[in-house]
Amino acid sequence: MNENTPISEIDQLVQQAHEAFLAFKRINSKQRAAFMHLVADEIEALGPELIDTAKLETNLPDARLAGEKARTVFQWRSYADALEKVLDIRIDTADTQRTPPKPDLRKTAVGLGVVAVFGASNFPFAFSTAGGDTASAIAAGCSVIVKTHPGHPKTSALMAGAIKAAVQRAGLHTGLFTEVRSDNVEGGQYLVAHPLIKAVGFTGSFAGGKALYDLAAKRPEPIPVFAEMGSVNPVFLLPRKLEKAAADVAKQYAASLTLGVGQFCTNPGIFVAPNHKDLPQFIDALKTLIADTSAAPMLHQGIASAYCKNKAALLAQAGVTVLAEAPETSPETHGNATVATVTANQFLANEQLGHEVFGPFGLIITYENAQEAEAIAKTFHGELTTTVLAEPEDIHAHQSLIEVLTGKCGRLLLNGFPTGVEVCYAMQHGGPYPASTDSRFTSVGPDAIKRFLRPLSYQNWPDEWLPDELKNANPLGIWRTVNGELTKSSL
Amino acid sequence: MNENTPISEIDQLVQQAHEAFLAFKRINSKQRAAFMHLVADEIEALGPELIDTAKLETNLPDARLAGEKARTVFQWRSYADALEKVLDIRIDTADTQRTPPKPDLRKTAVGLGVVAVFGASNFPFAFSTAGGDTASAIAAGCSVIVKTHPGHPKTSALMAGAIKAAVQRAGLHTGLFTEVRSDNVEGGQYLVAHPLIKAVGFTGSFAGGKALYDLAAKRPEPIPVFAEMGSVNPVFLLPRKLEKAAADVAKQYAASLTLGVGQFCTNPGIFVAPNHKDLPQFIDALKTLIADTSAAPMLHQGIASAYCKNKAALLAQAGVTVLAEAPETSPETHGNATVATVTANQFLANEQLGHEVFGPFGLIITYENAQEAEAIAKTFHGELTTTVLAEPEDIHAHQSLIEVLTGKCGRLLLNGFPTGVEVCYAMQHGGPYPASTDSRFTSVGPDAIKRFLRPLSYQNWPDEWLPDELKNANPLGIWRTVNGELTKSSL
Repeated sequence: MNENTPISEIDQLVQQAHEAFLAFKRINSKQRAAFMHLVADEIEALGPELIDTAKLETNLPDARLAGEKARTVFQWRSYADALEKVLDIRIDTADTQRTPPKPDLRKTAVGLGVVAVFGASNFPFAFSTAGGDTASAIAAGCSVIVKTHPGHPKTSALMAGAIKAAVQRAGLHTGLFTEVRSDNVEGGQYLVAHPLIKAVGFTGSFAGGKALYDLAAKRPEPIPVFAEMGSVNPVFLLPRKLEKAAADVAKQYAASLTLGVGQFCTNPGIFVAPNHKDLPQFIDALKTLIADTSAAPMLHQGIASAYCKNKAALLAQAGVTVLAEAPETSPETHGNATVATVTANQFLANEQLGHEVFGPFGLIITYENAQEAEAIAKTFHGELTTTVLAEPEDIHAHQSLIEVLTGKCGRLLLNGFPTGVEVCYAMQHGGPYPASTDSRFTSVGPDAIKRFLRPLSYQNWPDEWLPDELKNANPLGIWRTVNGELTKSSL
Repeated sequence: MNENTPISEIDQLVQQAHEAFLAFKRINSKQRAAFMHLVADEIEALGPELIDTAKLETNLPDARLAGEKARTVFQWRSYADALEKVLDIRIDTADTQRTPPKPDLRKTAVGLGVVAVFGASNFPFAFSTAGGDTASAIAAGCSVIVKTHPGHPKTSALMAGAIKAAVQRAGLHTGLFTEVRSDNVEGGQYLVAHPLIKAVGFTGSFAGGKALYDLAAKRPEPIPVFAEMGSVNPVFLLPRKLEKAAADVAKQYAASLTLGVGQFCTNPGIFVAPNHKDLPQFIDALKTLIADTSAAPMLHQGIASAYCKNKAALLAQAGVTVLAEAPETSPETHGNATVATVTANQFLANEQLGHEVFGPFGLIITYENAQEAEAIAKTFHGELTTTVLAEPEDIHAHQSLIEVLTGKCGRLLLNGFPTGVEVCYAMQHGGPYPASTDSRFTSVGPDAIKRFLRPLSYQNWPDEWLPDELKNANPLGIWRTVNGELTKSSL
């Protein structure tokens, strides 16, 4: 099962996926949605073997994996149900009396073609083989080839089996979903460079996402890559909030920082706090909480050793002092929560301090005044999230800071923590570069489907030849913009 | 006026445009729309000088320019009015009883930043300085720097003056709209590489668009480029239609091919016709029509000489014969309509025959049967449009061909011609590469605004701090998706 897929076989799989895409185009959106519910059924039906296998391969605990399985099923079902809402159907009817005559124009959206999906190691279900990228590409009408993550091959095989069972039950082309195994970069690079691949979805590291982006941009036919590449997700604690809720904030911060051994894209890696008389109260509470945390196994040894190495490199920077540390046990496999601190001046003088340390590591930057907080905010590049912990009077007093943060992120939180990415319409999981390669799209929520859709206008086609979503009678019963007005009415 | 803007000055302009973008963000969508109507007013108010100047600089006739001015004004007004409809507002309300609690999430869309716009030579008003790219970027909340087209500097200056007058009347930051003059590639390249430029809009040649795309992809921070790069817009005539309407089709084809001296992105450069007993009737009608066309001045000498050169290169290919030609007068400035023909076999054997010849040049490819027609269709890459001229029985008999064409274009026409790009919601002006650099977007119609917007989610912010479009009361009175349902209701 762990053998790499030979390149010649990858080529065949892509050819088949292309054939499957052409066949899939003939199915309407209702049938596509029904198929997605079948996939959800099949994933739900996977027995305890799924959790057991994933637990062995990723070290994630049962409760987390059970929750992630439910999330994955929900993604398939909710994207299926949302599908017609993201097509943005536009109809402008003819005006034959006008000079020149106005044609009848009707715009739907169709899939881009075969999509290559690169799963993440940190979400073996929800952002891997049968994860959000696969579900949204299928919802868009695309076929999918997943380059499975070498960290959890057996989990991937079980998930792939569930999708394939659904493909078989629905009587669809077997090329609609296939997977490729490759434990080096070669297989993935071949896939992205293949002329029949028309888009890429990726969740993972900056280095990995950027390499695929560069490859895709250099093709004779460049293709879109949506890579979600993580970020430091800065949290700004404002003075009145610190005064009011130091212990409570410490508790929430420690919980968010150490959740899943800090292995979330939205982990709050940087915490910006005022150098205020109540800061020691927050720090003391935090020290106790972090010291009471047990080191826990990370996803795999490579991640644990990178955590050690990157943490050590950051701690070696001038002015950085360790504030709190969980006991270190088995550092070759386990990650121990660590919080360090640095002053604003030192942070502003050293770009390296802004780098992400993937794992349960937090850097607290202390600031003297609002100007310094804003100067820190301005150093960030694109972030998935930025967070403000504030009382109303803090917000009034820090408008300029909040404006800066708004310009840096895809999601702006107030009095919460960024871990926990709700799967819903209003979610934006993405952000300005380098959080993602294209800030105009999200990889979570039904709008994730839009990454793999392109608009297609029909001009002057009679009703019987139009796709269902564009027909006069509105047989799908969906909302459409008709001559500029949203309506569910027929024409 | 024709002097190039010095690089140091371009840098200052970009800095100012960035400042203006930050200030523009504080204005709500209603105010942005009001400003756009002011721009429309100012363009409308430009007197006969505008048409006279453009006529001198582009050789386009009065009627065409008057129409294009009206179209430009309409773009500003209709994009302003549509602005709130393309924001895709999504609200998912909190559920504090759920475990874990569901947060309140509200998603709007904000401008990407400073947009660099590269105007086209062939639409001095509608796709140049104050054209669709500028209007849609401003609608998105971006500031704009236009690299003006060297073919019509005085026209550009007049249009820029109109926008600047509106900026002044609205009391907005003067950096919101500025222009850069450069008659070589240096100025544009500097602009696209500038760190504060966050997106690019381009209409023009493949070589120009691709160069900007490559430059943008190679930046330390890659940015999106929407380049609309034209295409050959193949038209497929099917047998029953030929039998029924040979003369009529010839008339419409000749009119579309020669409209504006063939200088439209959607000019029908390739015409695919059945080798059928009635074909000579079509050809004879076409010969007369083309021979009766007068050669007309092209946009500028460079375009006229490229037309001559590219046409000659294509006519020199094996198996290509000239069918009809308008009298050649002043070829150094004028384009004379020319139609040549080639068999399917010869076309399929020579990739060069598929290249665009910008101007009033048509290549008629004759096919023997449906299979051959489909083989021709499969050779095309991305096209702005594909067209089918067909009777109902033709459509029934050519389903497979039509499916192929659907996969190749942004707009699929039946019994019409692709010149004439309606400005409306349902328009898709773009298409798979190389017609555009991103088939997921359009450069015509209000959805063009989406190219320059990115979603931004607010999590758990109280009503008073939310932007107007997300507030409970729905003060803008717009459609919003609330908990999955479209509504104009308040919360």
